Amino acid sequence: MTDFTITRSHFLLPPGVVYLDGNSLGPPTVSTAGALARRVEEEWGRQLIQSWNTAGWMTQPRQLGDRIGPLIGAPPGSVVVGDTLSIKVFQALAATLDLNPRRRVILSDTGNFPSDLYIAQNLVRMLDRGHSLRLVSPEAVLASIDEEVAVVLLTEVDYRSARRHDMKAITRRAHEAGALTVWDLAHSTGAIPVNVLDAEADFAAGCTYKYLNAGPGAPAFVYVSEKHLGRIRPALSGWLGHEAPFSFDLDYRAGPGIDRMVVATPSVLAMPALQAALSVWDGVSIDDVRAASIALSELFISEVERRCPELVLASPRTPAERGSHVSFRHDEGGAVMQALIARGVIGDFRAPNMMRFGITPLYIGEREIRAAVDVVEDVLTRRLWTAPAYQRKAFVT
Amino acid sequence: MTDFTITRSHFLLPPGVVYLDGNSLGPPTVSTAGALARRVEEEWGRQLIQSWNTAGWMTQPRQLGDRIGPLIGAPPGSVVVGDTLSIKVFQALAATLDLNPRRRVILSDTGNFPSDLYIAQNLVRMLDRGHSLRLVSPEAVLASIDEEVAVVLLTEVDYRSARRHDMKAITRRAHEAGALTVWDLAHSTGAIPVNVLDAEADFAAGCTYKYLNAGPGAPAFVYVSEKHLGRIRPALSGWLGHEAPFSFDLDYRAGPGIDRMVVATPSVLAMPALQAALSVWDGVSIDDVRAASIALSELFISEVERRCPELVLASPRTPAERGSHVSFRHDEGGAVMQALIARGVIGDFRAPNMMRFGITPLYIGEREIRAAVDVVEDVLTRRLWTAPAYQRKAFVT
Repeated sequence: MTDFTITRSHFLLPPGVVYLDGNSLGPPTVSTAGALARRVEEEWGRQLIQSWNTAGWMTQPRQLGDRIGPLIGAPPGSVVVGDTLSIKVFQALAATLDLNPRRRVILSDTGNFPSDLYIAQNLVRMLDRGHSLRLVSPEAVLASIDEEVAVVLLTEVDYRSARRHDMKAITRRAHEAGALTVWDLAHSTGAIPVNVLDAEADFAAGCTYKYLNAGPGAPAFVYVSEKHLGRIRPALSGWLGHEAPFSFDLDYRAGPGIDRMVVATPSVLAMPALQAALSVWDGVSIDDVRAASIALSELFISEVERRCPELVLASPRTPAERGSHVSFRHDEGGAVMQALIARGVIGDFRAPNMMRFGITPLYIGEREIRAAVDVVEDVLTRRLWTAPAYQRKAFVT
Repeated sequence: MTDFTITRSHFLLPPGVVYLDGNSLGPPTVSTAGALARRVEEEWGRQLIQSWNTAGWMTQPRQLGDRIGPLIGAPPGSVVVGDTLSIKVFQALAATLDLNPRRRVILSDTGNFPSDLYIAQNLVRMLDRGHSLRLVSPEAVLASIDEEVAVVLLTEVDYRSARRHDMKAITRRAHEAGALTVWDLAHSTGAIPVNVLDAEADFAAGCTYKYLNAGPGAPAFVYVSEKHLGRIRPALSGWLGHEAPFSFDLDYRAGPGIDRMVVATPSVLAMPALQAALSVWDGVSIDDVRAASIALSELFISEVERRCPELVLASPRTPAERGSHVSFRHDEGGAVMQALIARGVIGDFRAPNMMRFGITPLYIGEREIRAAVDVVEDVLTRRLWTAPAYQRKAFVT
């Protein structure tokens, strides 16, 4: 069994704060700053350019990909780290349109994170050959996969409500209809067990700054199914995705396997933060994390509903249908959340009325959940959110 | 006048090393590791998600862009930092094809950094509407700009020979012929005075890990001329380039000005290294840096030619036609460079036979140049490079 007393000791969290926003940005580990300093002073500063070889900078994107792999059920050599999630979605989406050239529809849903939709809209516009982005409600996705659909592009866990898609069922239906799938795992990776192999997902991508705690703007990752890997020529073909980067050929030749999804020089400086964050997962079972997340979420929901009737649950009530955050609606949710934050309970807010609370068992336990509910109840009962200071502000995903 | 004694004191360099590879990867500053640690411990660790606003994470890509601006003659609000150089080249190139829809030729040269060519090849393939990449020799560029050319895509300073294009003359000729320009400033920024405004460059992009010393895989930057900025809808339209990222609209609307070139969450963790590196430039004149670079390069060339006749100059002899590195040919250049590195003189090598030496006055002076020449002469005279240990190895740009 995973000992969450130990995992929690790995994190740097300010005293007096209950941090329920790990679904947006996880906290640093106690070893993160030191790991970055070592990269600067012992590798870059001492070995300079030679670090590319001596310190393993060249191979780290793939090594870190292989470390993320088990969290999403991906085999070695099928995941690589780099760029941002939107860039990786672009690469994956463009590859599916290449692989399915006679179809013209990208199917997505209105619960998808908007950046994925913007990337798709722009790809459609760039290609300018009759593709379209078909947006349906999350509930209508399965029934909307028809013979026109080239690719189903979905985020498994909704960034607002935490509503979870059935990756396996949707992928099966997509394949039956001759479509491919691109899964955005931003709110899945490190939050819930994912198995891209079992679900037969074609492509997947995710970020590492939420439940993987690798820091703001940490590198994204992309997964490509083995059945496609040899066949794709990636959109965004940079020199580090070339078969022989150091031959400096004038013509692009796709690199072996997942290496071809690397574009250009990745953020080597930021990678030790990802490495430090992933080391927390050593000996940790994602199934244990999920079980703890469900127990804590159920406690949070039942206590909030019992003591704070003004809040209306916006997440699915059935645990299996949720990711690892819980959302409640309140007409003044922005102000309420500001008041909570002022009291040390940090969640976030999504317009127009959704308050999100991330449940992250690696560093949040029953004591924090109970303390948070006490504060929520106090803020609502005493209407503390009506204070002028708690103006609505923007929150970051 | 710039005091290079002071600039040099800002850098962390190992004792006994003459580092002549700043054209590939600049060294860290003494404040880099501390700046990264502060970001982790004082911002991310203490203020967590709130740092996006309280620590200025949201606005840093543009602030750092404005700090780079003066080094390339770009006005405030025309440069933004993020992603990698290849991604920024893709965005710029795609924008020019959008702006010049009736033309079908991307003109580039065989001296361009291959990643730019790969990006162009793949864009042509993706668009699949008759574009082509026309590659000519660097000398033939000016005469090859005809009425078919949509965009001239060039790296100003050749990564191998340091041969410098005349940005202003080529841009003028391009505009006369109805073409646009995308300039890759990887080997220009911080090395030589650049003036995108005076040259009337349409788009430019560069990296910050060479002469700007921001670290391995540090964020790239992109410049867009004001005359195009309002008209382009960027390729790779991510949520942070949206007019109102936090409204989470389902439809993309390009953000104001240069903000639209931001894609998704940038590498916030790595940015303090860029900020620390740029602070070295406070009070430093790029013209002084250039003058010192030319003086040191002339000294290096004349001493090497006098004492090491085996080496054949591969860079232009006229200083104004070079960037800030000097290249020599040697049939066994890879082994020779390995032998030099073993003696503490770090340059690099580009197949098949080119040895590169970066001249970076911020931290390299006459003493280092003379010491380097002594070692070069010794290694060649005593044929130290024939030792089995000095096998050819890959070098990183």
